[in-house]
Amino acid sequence: MNDPVRVTVTGAAGQVAYSLLFSIASGDMLGDDQPVILQLLDIPETFSVLEGVSMELEDAAYPLLAGVTLHDDAERAFAGADYALLVGAKPRGPGMERKDLLEDNAAIFVANGQALEAVASHDVRVVVVGNPANTNALIVLGNAPRLAAHQVTAMTRLDHNRALAQLARHTGEAVARIRRLTVWGNHSATLYPDLSHALVGDRAAVELASPEWRTAQFEPAVQQRGAAVIKARGKSSAGSAAQAIVDHMRDWVLGTPPDEWVSMSVLSDGSYGIAEGIFYSFPCRCANGRFEIVQGLSIDEMSRQRMTATEQELLDERSVVAHLLP
Amino acid sequence: MNDPVRVTVTGAAGQVAYSLLFSIASGDMLGDDQPVILQLLDIPETFSVLEGVSMELEDAAYPLLAGVTLHDDAERAFAGADYALLVGAKPRGPGMERKDLLEDNAAIFVANGQALEAVASHDVRVVVVGNPANTNALIVLGNAPRLAAHQVTAMTRLDHNRALAQLARHTGEAVARIRRLTVWGNHSATLYPDLSHALVGDRAAVELASPEWRTAQFEPAVQQRGAAVIKARGKSSAGSAAQAIVDHMRDWVLGTPPDEWVSMSVLSDGSYGIAEGIFYSFPCRCANGRFEIVQGLSIDEMSRQRMTATEQELLDERSVVAHLLP
Repeated sequence: MNDPVRVTVTGAAGQVAYSLLFSIASGDMLGDDQPVILQLLDIPETFSVLEGVSMELEDAAYPLLAGVTLHDDAERAFAGADYALLVGAKPRGPGMERKDLLEDNAAIFVANGQALEAVASHDVRVVVVGNPANTNALIVLGNAPRLAAHQVTAMTRLDHNRALAQLARHTGEAVARIRRLTVWGNHSATLYPDLSHALVGDRAAVELASPEWRTAQFEPAVQQRGAAVIKARGKSSAGSAAQAIVDHMRDWVLGTPPDEWVSMSVLSDGSYGIAEGIFYSFPCRCANGRFEIVQGLSIDEMSRQRMTATEQELLDERSVVAHLLP
Repeated sequence: MNDPVRVTVTGAAGQVAYSLLFSIASGDMLGDDQPVILQLLDIPETFSVLEGVSMELEDAAYPLLAGVTLHDDAERAFAGADYALLVGAKPRGPGMERKDLLEDNAAIFVANGQALEAVASHDVRVVVVGNPANTNALIVLGNAPRLAAHQVTAMTRLDHNRALAQLARHTGEAVARIRRLTVWGNHSATLYPDLSHALVGDRAAVELASPEWRTAQFEPAVQQRGAAVIKARGKSSAGSAAQAIVDHMRDWVLGTPPDEWVSMSVLSDGSYGIAEGIFYSFPCRCANGRFEIVQGLSIDEMSRQRMTATEQELLDERSVVAHLLP
C-alpha cells in the first residue's frame, strides 16, 4: 500500500463534490492501492453541510480513506496537496453574461492559484472544473508561478464522454468500442467534438456519421447537453461531471489505454496552430503521470473553422481577465 | 466479459439512487467484468428527473453500462431482474409514527413482491433499503412465494459501516483493520451494534472499548447517526447509504473477505434463539453467491438483552402487517 496522498477539493459542499468524494474515497480515481486524505474547502456558510458530508464519508468505512479535513481557508485546504480538484465556482445566474461570470469567478481562481503557489506539494496536479474552466485554469497558472504548465489542466472530459455517448447511440455500438474522438477548444457552447479520426469498432466514424448528422445533430447535442440535463432533471449535471473528473485524473495519473486518447484542456504550446497562452482542449495521451498532446492529426477545413471559432472565444476570455495574469 | 445482468432499482429518481446508480454502472457493485442493464422504477411524477438521470448515466460513458430503461410500472421494471434494489419508500413525515410509516409503505412492498413473483429472474437477489426495511423485506417475501428465503435480504450494512467508523475513531485504528463486528436486529433505533467478538488489529475490541463507552457513546452514536447526518447536512444520508448498498450486494455476490463477516438482515432461522419468521440482522459470511449466518458466537447477558429488545420490535412490526402476509 502506498503512503496517503492529499486531495484538495473546492466547492466541497456542492452537488458535484457530493457525487465525487465518495468515488475518490472508494479508490475509483487513484486506484485500489492509494490511500487518500481529503481536504475539503468551501465557504463558511456551508460548514454544517460539509460536516455532514464528512460524517457520511466516515460512515462509508472506506479502507482507502486516511482522513478528511474541512476548511474555509484556502491556504489550509491546499496545504501539501498532491491533487487539487477546483470544482467550486459561482454558478451562472439568470440573465448573467459569460463575461460577468468570468469576472465574478476570477477572484476565486486567483485565490486558488495563490494558495497552490504558497502551500501545495511541488508536484501538485490541478484540474479546474468550475466555469469558465479553461480561463480559470489560466488564472490559476498565472497566479502560481512555481507551477509548471504541465501541472495544470481544465476539464473537457465531460464533453468528451458526452460525445462518446452520442456517437454510441447513433451507431448502435457500445461506447467501449469507440476510440480517438476529440473535443477541441473551450468547455463552452463553442467546443468542437471532432469525429474525423474516431473509430467505431474497426470502422472510421465518418463512414457511419454523415456530415449532415454531425453538423445538425451531433455537435449541438454535445454542446447543449448540459442545458438539456438541467431541463430534464431540474438540476445541473453532477453525477456525470463527477465521473468525468475521476476519469480525467485517473487517466492523467495512471495512463490512457493503449491506442486511445482523451480530451484534456491544457496550455496550448502552439500545436495545430492554436495560439499559445490559452487553455485549449486537445487530444492527449498520458503515461508516467504526464500528458502529451497527440501530434500529427490531419485537420480538414470544417474542423479548422470550428477550432478557430472556439480558439477565438478563449482569446476573448483571456482579454477580459488580462489584468489578473502576469 | 459476462453477459449483462438486469438490475432493478426502485425510488430511482431519489437521492440515494442518484448516488447509487453511477456506482453500479462503474462496476463497483458487481465487478469490472459484469455489464449491467439498469431498470429504473419511480412514480410517474418523477419521470422527467428519471430521464435526466438516464441522460447523465449515458454521458458518463460507462463501458459496463449495457442499457437503461425507465418505468413507472413495477411489472415492467422487474422483468427479468437478476438483482432488485428496493430503495423507494415514502419517507417518514413530521409527527408520523413508525406504525403509520409501516402501513403507508406496506402497499409499495406488496406491489414489489407481486411484481418480483410475476416477472423477475428465478434466481433474483433482493435487498430492501426503504424503511422499515426489515419488515418490508418480510412483506416482499410473503408476496413472492416463488422466491426462496435466501433470495431476499434487508440492509443493515449502513449501520454496520457506521459502527466500524465509530470504533475506528475511538481506537485510532484504521477501519480496514477492524473485523468481526456485528449489528443485530432491526434497522431502527433499537439495533444493537455488538463489539463482543470484534477485533481491532490483533486485539479484542472489548479491551479497547469500556462497557461505559459502549453503552453511553457507541451504541447511541450508531443508532442515532442517521438523525445526526440530517441535522448537519440538511438531508438524509445518501452517499453513505448508496455505498452500503454496493457493499451489501458486492459481498453477497462476490463473497466476504476471508476471516471476516458482515451484517445482513435475513429471514431468521432461529439462530441465536431469535424468533423465526422475522428479518433480523445477523453476522453473515458469503461465498458462491450465498450467505450463511455465522454460528456459535457466545452471547453475554448485555448482548442478549439488546438482541431481545430489537427482536421484540420486529415481532411488533410484523403484527401490524400480519394481514399482508401469507
